[in-house]
Amino acid sequence: MDGARLARARTAVREAGLDALLVGPSADLRYLVGYDAMALERLTMLVVPADGDAELVVPALEEPAATASGAADLAGLRPWTEDEDPIATVTQILGRYGTPQGLAVSDQLFTVFTLRLQDALPGVAFRPSGEVMRELRAVKEPSEIAALHAVGAAIDGVHAQVASLLAPGRTEAEVARDIHELIAAEHDEVAFIIVASGPNGASPHHAVSDRVLERGDAVVVDIGGVKDGYYSDMTRDYAVEVVPDGYAELHAVLEEAQERAVAAVAPGVAAADIDAAARRTIEAAGYGDRFIHRTGHGIGIEVHEQPYIVASNTAPVTSGMAFSIEPGIYIPGRYGARIEDIVVVTDDGVARVNHRPREVLVAG
Amino acid sequence: MDGARLARARTAVREAGLDALLVGPSADLRYLVGYDAMALERLTMLVVPADGDAELVVPALEEPAATASGAADLAGLRPWTEDEDPIATVTQILGRYGTPQGLAVSDQLFTVFTLRLQDALPGVAFRPSGEVMRELRAVKEPSEIAALHAVGAAIDGVHAQVASLLAPGRTEAEVARDIHELIAAEHDEVAFIIVASGPNGASPHHAVSDRVLERGDAVVVDIGGVKDGYYSDMTRDYAVEVVPDGYAELHAVLEEAQERAVAAVAPGVAAADIDAAARRTIEAAGYGDRFIHRTGHGIGIEVHEQPYIVASNTAPVTSGMAFSIEPGIYIPGRYGARIEDIVVVTDDGVARVNHRPREVLVAG
Repeated sequence: MDGARLARARTAVREAGLDALLVGPSADLRYLVGYDAMALERLTMLVVPADGDAELVVPALEEPAATASGAADLAGLRPWTEDEDPIATVTQILGRYGTPQGLAVSDQLFTVFTLRLQDALPGVAFRPSGEVMRELRAVKEPSEIAALHAVGAAIDGVHAQVASLLAPGRTEAEVARDIHELIAAEHDEVAFIIVASGPNGASPHHAVSDRVLERGDAVVVDIGGVKDGYYSDMTRDYAVEVVPDGYAELHAVLEEAQERAVAAVAPGVAAADIDAAARRTIEAAGYGDRFIHRTGHGIGIEVHEQPYIVASNTAPVTSGMAFSIEPGIYIPGRYGARIEDIVVVTDDGVARVNHRPREVLVAG
Repeated sequence: MDGARLARARTAVREAGLDALLVGPSADLRYLVGYDAMALERLTMLVVPADGDAELVVPALEEPAATASGAADLAGLRPWTEDEDPIATVTQILGRYGTPQGLAVSDQLFTVFTLRLQDALPGVAFRPSGEVMRELRAVKEPSEIAALHAVGAAIDGVHAQVASLLAPGRTEAEVARDIHELIAAEHDEVAFIIVASGPNGASPHHAVSDRVLERGDAVVVDIGGVKDGYYSDMTRDYAVEVVPDGYAELHAVLEEAQERAVAAVAPGVAAADIDAAARRTIEAAGYGDRFIHRTGHGIGIEVHEQPYIVASNTAPVTSGMAFSIEPGIYIPGRYGARIEDIVVVTDDGVARVNHRPREVLVAG
């Protein structure tokens, strides 16, 4: 990693009229200097002054880890020992550039540190770093897009084997254990596994239970892993031996909604309009109140990141952004359905990262 | 879980002169209502008014999980959908009790939410929840102390098998994989594994590497897991076939330091004095500048929590508190040593949770 991302962050800080960016353990820290620090009760903080060199305040205990990460090549290390106050170290670094007026602070920094910084810097305006980092992180570099395609291919390969795992008498948990092995074989890390059978499918964030699969169950399988630091996230719907009543019709609506939302993606299109493309189709079929979540989320070094594909986000998507398109329809007590692919905005439209068939796959 | 912890939290909020406690996904949320919520970009927040009933603001998607946790029996659920602003829901709940003057906010809440709350509630004083929750969480209930003893016995049992895994030619990573299986067999979850051989032992937070063990290595093994929601954390030092030069003398100092610090523990003794008991012994032997961290940390439903056994913490420990006593001596380029047990403050002194021998165990 070179200092290009740090340089762009400094530019963004200046353009926002702020004096510095303060980054705690988070995806932002990994993104900027490649250091995957744990969020601890001991403060780790990258200080990026608008007009100065970045410095990394780290617990002395973590100095070897920070150095091994390569972060020390991009930022001066400022280790602190147990009898020092790291907040004082941060304010002292900031003070070198004059009294700060406005600071961006990591979205994910523990509140206890932000409140201590506010106590130490009364009158200073604190803004969430997302306001500064959003564009930077959301628009992927070519190497990042390649990584998303590679991890997308890996999860495509896992879904290709899921139908063979579904059979009456097996539990969701047993199926999930098998999927765990398949993801692990193709990724560096297993991120999450949802196997939501029958009525469990009606809860979008149901994970896994001991429910036994039955003939005629619909099964929502939403899975992801991490490969070379980038996430996959892909959902397909299955049926155990036979497709339950009404599910084929519902799923045809969902397939059309997903297809229309993907087709709506192009540079300059508002995220809200992509969301609306999926939602209109589902509403027209009478399922409007059964599509109970946003259409998608950005993805990259976090499984959920900017941009969010939701009605309230009227900002346009631009070339290089990557996000999920995942409309769903949920019928309480019976079943649910969701189709999810990752897409990347290209210079003139959209590229899909996942390529497996989207129709209901009948297992057995 | 009943509402007793919530009632005590309300009392603590009132005594601190605050209007409400706002708890995000964190150990505090698990502690108060038993809900193990994920920290997401969608806000989950338990609102505990000083003089009213608790309400849990959750993303509609997470409502089934919140209900399944039992939290709905202790707090009214306030699900929010994708087109609602959860910050407005929180401020609306607070507004029912008048304009708030001061609020306690989870130490671990993502800063982005705190800054949005501050925007919505200008002029309100925000304090870290640790100031309110510290005593509550730190003083364990009898069932919690029993859980700490049980998980302590489990990790004792793992350490009893570690020496048999250490042999010249094996890597730290291979040893760690075996330890992983041993911890998993006795715990619900593996929390962390440090196998720091030879010079790696001089870095207190070294985890695991591909370094090959050699005859004459000292090896620091610091491991922990979770059982019934409570953590174990225990360190012992081993030698591969022979004890390296000077290590026995150094370790004798460390054993005395650990023993003295444990013996210093009693209700009413300042945490700083417990730290000093270990530090004095190590300083007297000439290793003062090689003991580069605090003496200990509280433990319970988090592996690090209040109270911290460190020079800056002059507050007394009280009966029911549980924490580690883990002095260490680190010789860069050669080896390190650390002895760690969990102890519980009793009405008249101290009880150890871990009972394995503390001397260097020679493997092979």
